[in-house]
Amino acid sequence: MKVIAGVDIGGTNTKIGLVSPEGRVIRYNRFKTGSLPNFEQFILAIVEHINALVLPNEELVGIGIGAPNGNFYSGSVEHAPNMPFKGFLPIKESLKKHFSCHIELTNDANAAAMGEKLYGAAKDYNDFIVITLGTGVGSGIYCNGQLVYGHDGFAGELGHVIVFPGGRLCGCGRRGCLEPYANQRGVLQTLEELKPSFPESSLHGIEPINAKIISDHAHAGDTLAIAVFEQTGKYLGFAFANFMAFLSPKAIFLFGGISRAGELLRQPLIDEMERNMLNIYQNKLEVRFSELSDDDAAILGAAALVG
Amino acid sequence: MKVIAGVDIGGTNTKIGLVSPEGRVIRYNRFKTGSLPNFEQFILAIVEHINALVLPNEELVGIGIGAPNGNFYSGSVEHAPNMPFKGFLPIKESLKKHFSCHIELTNDANAAAMGEKLYGAAKDYNDFIVITLGTGVGSGIYCNGQLVYGHDGFAGELGHVIVFPGGRLCGCGRRGCLEPYANQRGVLQTLEELKPSFPESSLHGIEPINAKIISDHAHAGDTLAIAVFEQTGKYLGFAFANFMAFLSPKAIFLFGGISRAGELLRQPLIDEMERNMLNIYQNKLEVRFSELSDDDAAILGAAALVG
Repeated sequence: MKVIAGVDIGGTNTKIGLVSPEGRVIRYNRFKTGSLPNFEQFILAIVEHINALVLPNEELVGIGIGAPNGNFYSGSVEHAPNMPFKGFLPIKESLKKHFSCHIELTNDANAAAMGEKLYGAAKDYNDFIVITLGTGVGSGIYCNGQLVYGHDGFAGELGHVIVFPGGRLCGCGRRGCLEPYANQRGVLQTLEELKPSFPESSLHGIEPINAKIISDHAHAGDTLAIAVFEQTGKYLGFAFANFMAFLSPKAIFLFGGISRAGELLRQPLIDEMERNMLNIYQNKLEVRFSELSDDDAAILGAAALVG
Repeated sequence: MKVIAGVDIGGTNTKIGLVSPEGRVIRYNRFKTGSLPNFEQFILAIVEHINALVLPNEELVGIGIGAPNGNFYSGSVEHAPNMPFKGFLPIKESLKKHFSCHIELTNDANAAAMGEKLYGAAKDYNDFIVITLGTGVGSGIYCNGQLVYGHDGFAGELGHVIVFPGGRLCGCGRRGCLEPYANQRGVLQTLEELKPSFPESSLHGIEPINAKIISDHAHAGDTLAIAVFEQTGKYLGFAFANFMAFLSPKAIFLFGGISRAGELLRQPLIDEMERNMLNIYQNKLEVRFSELSDDDAAILGAAALVG
């Protein structure tokens, strides 16, 4: 059987899945991106993990890679603030020394958007944005039914739109980007800011804490946890009202860990978005959740690059 | 000879030009948009001005219209804040009662972008933005070589991206949009804010004043006038750094009255833009001026809709 490897490189985890011709993830593994000492060892880890997945009766016909700041045109990761390896990382070229099959690379968020378009909730949409909420905040944009790369392959860095000038410090070194308000660390900062107002919350004293734990407590009714996602939703909603003025998408899909808060995030997001929306855009933009599991979407999207 | 009428509806002026098959404006006229008492009379004025232009030996084969908030899909102007007529204006349908030829309508800024792409400085660009700086601030966006309409025909309202939250009141009723910082009125507000710091300026006491007068004084060396465009350039530069994170265009073209300030606007704009640019985008985005005259670009662009 012919198989494709979809590689989802994240700031925290690197996930590799084998995808069948029918578009199913048939086998997968993962490792911590930061567990490798340098870029060369990281490439070797990808090679080993791919080889470990492919059975003797299978033929690897392509490798598609999604990575933060991954550039489709150059096949490299360039200055990704959340990656443990810095500078210019020639991933496509490095993997080509180990495999003779077709290899392509793009932005991890672009890959998620391609996965959503091919296999998920965006099948019937020509104008939409996928926002990934995780270690970073990324985005993949479809316009006129096509993925938007921009002139240099770097379009769609909506996590680095300055939404609150002079605001929180971002991993990119600038202030007020959307990312530090809506990524994992941003949610924790919002928690710290709100803690003093909720002395009775069950979240006090929990160490270490992460967005999933806060989400669990929110669903269990903790008012501080609920307030954290309400505030995060407001930040996102304000940003989305601005995003609409660019491309007037039919929908924005939320993807990644933070979005597991579900309606506790979505409803305040929509309320704040509509409050700040230019009149011609009001009550038009759908805010939906990805219909793919976090693991599968990025792998399928990456695989679709060479599918 | 077969001719096309290009109609450029603005908040202040409505300009109508006849365009030859080779893409030249061969004859044109204009009237004040606000000089008509209502929408019906406004339509009749357009009809009369078109008929007055067409000679007996010419055949009118199409009418292309650019208008603020003009919607290509509906053929109507919808809730344009700077238009003297309010609400939903069915321009295409209304003109169809008077002409049997092909009629299309789009956003005035989209029309300017189409003009720039077909006849101007953007001929060789597939990813670019045209920003129109006039009574309002509009934009036309090309992505992958196609004009971006969005799912509802309203994409590209970059004058209504909230760049400075809580800032100046915009004609749309919200605060902090780019428009009140970079349109005619915004330049005058910046002038008023800077006046006290420049007591010796030759601009004090000039009434009425407009952007063209300030531009003339700036080119003559008046330090207040220069400071006005420096500050306006900074506002635009900060916004452009954010625009880059969406579509990573190859160039942004400045069009309209305010852009006549030339380098006095462009250099501070570029400096502020690069200071606020995400590292992966630095020193990539060209900021250029439209190569079409203000009159011709919108007329040619509108005409291109049916050309």
